[in-house]
Amino acid sequence: MAFMIAQRAYIKLYLINKVEQRRGYGYQMLEELKEEFKPFGYVPPQSEIYRALHELVQEGVLYRTKQLKGNDPSVDFQEIVLYHFTDNGAEKAALYKKQVKTDLDRCIGMLHKAVADNFV
Amino acid sequence: MAFMIAQRAYIKLYLINKVEQRRGYGYQMLEELKEEFKPFGYVPPQSEIYRALHELVQEGVLYRTKQLKGNDPSVDFQEIVLYHFTDNGAEKAALYKKQVKTDLDRCIGMLHKAVADNFV
Repeated sequence: MAFMIAQRAYIKLYLINKVEQRRGYGYQMLEELKEEFKPFGYVPPQSEIYRALHELVQEGVLYRTKQLKGNDPSVDFQEIVLYHFTDNGAEKAALYKKQVKTDLDRCIGMLHKAVADNFV
Repeated sequence: MAFMIAQRAYIKLYLINKVEQRRGYGYQMLEELKEEFKPFGYVPPQSEIYRALHELVQEGVLYRTKQLKGNDPSVDFQEIVLYHFTDNGAEKAALYKKQVKTDLDRCIGMLHKAVADNFV
């Protein structure tokens, strides 16, 4: 088993969360995640977020739609990408989250152990 | 900042600990660490442990001595490698541990956050 939880898994967990909250607008998710981890000095890399989204699509958890950003197509041509659960996507996501939870708990255990063993 | 604490830093923390406890016998440390993390399904790679020891020596925290394993050199020729703090090694180690503690706390925070945000 790997030393710590993979960054990809951690990010996928949050992307699933955003889609559950119907906040599945690609660029917006990216900005929200960057903001969210600022207090931890961690900037989720854009490339990792896009790869994670790509994997979730490949795995049949999410699908993409595109729509124009504004309401008037004659004025606003910018397309945005939205992510949604596929028919059984929520079910697949729940299973995936369960696996990630196990690894999160394991990692929390290893980090707490290091604190307990090395800092009294 | 990296996503999670580096495996190397985590291992160095434990190696310093072993030397503090005067258990700085290279091969023995390796075996003890492997045993210690079994409940977490994590096997610290031997190569990582040796690289971590190498770094601690390069950084002037530890130095190596060699001695014969048994008491009778005519019978037992096996050499063992022992690690000790240099003159200011304990001081350097304390400084390093302080840095690692900050990162451990940050990572524990990020993992607890993921549990709180994604698993209610």
